[in-house]
Amino acid sequence: MENYIYINDQLLPATEATLNVRDLAIQRGYGLFDFFKTIGNRPIFLDDHLDRFYHSADEMGLEIAFTLNELKGMISTLIAKNNIPDSGIKLILTGGYSDDGFTITGPANLIIQQTPLVIKNLSDSGIKLMSYHYQRQLPSVKSIDYVQAIRLQKQMRESGVGEILYYYNSIVGESPRSNFFIVTNNEILTAENNILKGVIRGKIMGLNIPGYTVAERDFTMDDLFAAKEAFLSSTTRQAHPVVAVDGRPIGDGQPGPVVREINRQLFGLMEKE
Amino acid sequence: MENYIYINDQLLPATEATLNVRDLAIQRGYGLFDFFKTIGNRPIFLDDHLDRFYHSADEMGLEIAFTLNELKGMISTLIAKNNIPDSGIKLILTGGYSDDGFTITGPANLIIQQTPLVIKNLSDSGIKLMSYHYQRQLPSVKSIDYVQAIRLQKQMRESGVGEILYYYNSIVGESPRSNFFIVTNNEILTAENNILKGVIRGKIMGLNIPGYTVAERDFTMDDLFAAKEAFLSSTTRQAHPVVAVDGRPIGDGQPGPVVREINRQLFGLMEKE
Repeated sequence: MENYIYINDQLLPATEATLNVRDLAIQRGYGLFDFFKTIGNRPIFLDDHLDRFYHSADEMGLEIAFTLNELKGMISTLIAKNNIPDSGIKLILTGGYSDDGFTITGPANLIIQQTPLVIKNLSDSGIKLMSYHYQRQLPSVKSIDYVQAIRLQKQMRESGVGEILYYYNSIVGESPRSNFFIVTNNEILTAENNILKGVIRGKIMGLNIPGYTVAERDFTMDDLFAAKEAFLSSTTRQAHPVVAVDGRPIGDGQPGPVVREINRQLFGLMEKE
Repeated sequence: MENYIYINDQLLPATEATLNVRDLAIQRGYGLFDFFKTIGNRPIFLDDHLDRFYHSADEMGLEIAFTLNELKGMISTLIAKNNIPDSGIKLILTGGYSDDGFTITGPANLIIQQTPLVIKNLSDSGIKLMSYHYQRQLPSVKSIDYVQAIRLQKQMRESGVGEILYYYNSIVGESPRSNFFIVTNNEILTAENNILKGVIRGKIMGLNIPGYTVAERDFTMDDLFAAKEAFLSSTTRQAHPVVAVDGRPIGDGQPGPVVREINRQLFGLMEKE
């Protein structure tokens, strides 16, 4: 079974889905993306992701040549064509073909690709992180700039951790592909500034968790190490308990009850989509 | 006349020089490059550029599948095939094809492309800059990350300036594609830290300019506005006089004699290559 990918308005077999090297993603790392999941061929939180996709394009001065309805139509066509019921769908918008390899001279190039992705409830599966001092550029934009995250892959493997946690001047930020939360005695906290505001992060902020207020407010590494629980949030992970950072246990070093309750509610929201 | 481009060991017409969208440059902006010029089909300062290309690859954890001699052979073949005597040749190394669009799983992809480039002596052609508060990530690496520079193109056009000058915490750094120098009463100064150390910058540091010491030492925006002259250095520009920054004139607001002397000597070095 061949997988299909959109390049602009053309639906092509994955092996033929190419860009000429004049594209500004290849020449200058210039592009942005968004990523959502499908469960049983139903897109989950699609409007939130497409809203952010248009926002990112706007922030990077690129124009998406398709209306929201046209994009949705292409996504439906892709889902029908590929028939991968549980999947991740990634939309990439690049700087387009440039005459001089630097200046934006052509229309942006759009890629829509789909890969299998089975969503699991990770409430019982703790992940360990390593911290790294870094502030992403254009933090509110989902750009394709993952230079630090890719470069740190070897160090992560050597350290036996599953993900990185960016902090900057002692303020905790986010992970390369996830937001980050801590749980205190009465709050569920996530960073407010200089991060990408993820779709699942937003859903969690709207939950009603008995005994806790969910708030966005910047907090420090010390706050993290004093927390009862911590977790990552993303389209792939939902809420994923963090049991250690830099080898130091978080709380009692085990997945906790607050993450479990959050996942219970998130999976309920996903059911309703 | 069709222009040819190397993709790994394949020499292809430019229109067929493509990468599959699974490449990590497209997925994650992960790649690096170098750029040198040819004059009358002679590569200029080639060894310096190739040294840096291997250094950048090493810093980004990527392997160039070709030895130095193999690369030089491919460059010679490209020059003979294209016959563009005065040109710029760009080598790009991307993160390669990734199975999951994130992890480095395959060999890096190499691109070698050539475009016409006529080198002029710009000693009499002043350029205006706009400053921008920014520190590039991995500053010693010639990565393809030009997110800020591309994004600022519209603002540059609106401001009527020809280039950006990055500074950070009041320390002057570099331009997106050039190094930056100022001329004081007895020194020719360029930043020491957190910049890409350009090949032309290195050549200028080796020059003997009567009455001046050439030094690398960090300096401030105030130092810049007190300077007698300022200039950009790059493979494309050689030494290019900067006559204003943010609308404020540098020195008397005209190209000066020190830049002229530097270009005289640089063009002499290029003749000898």
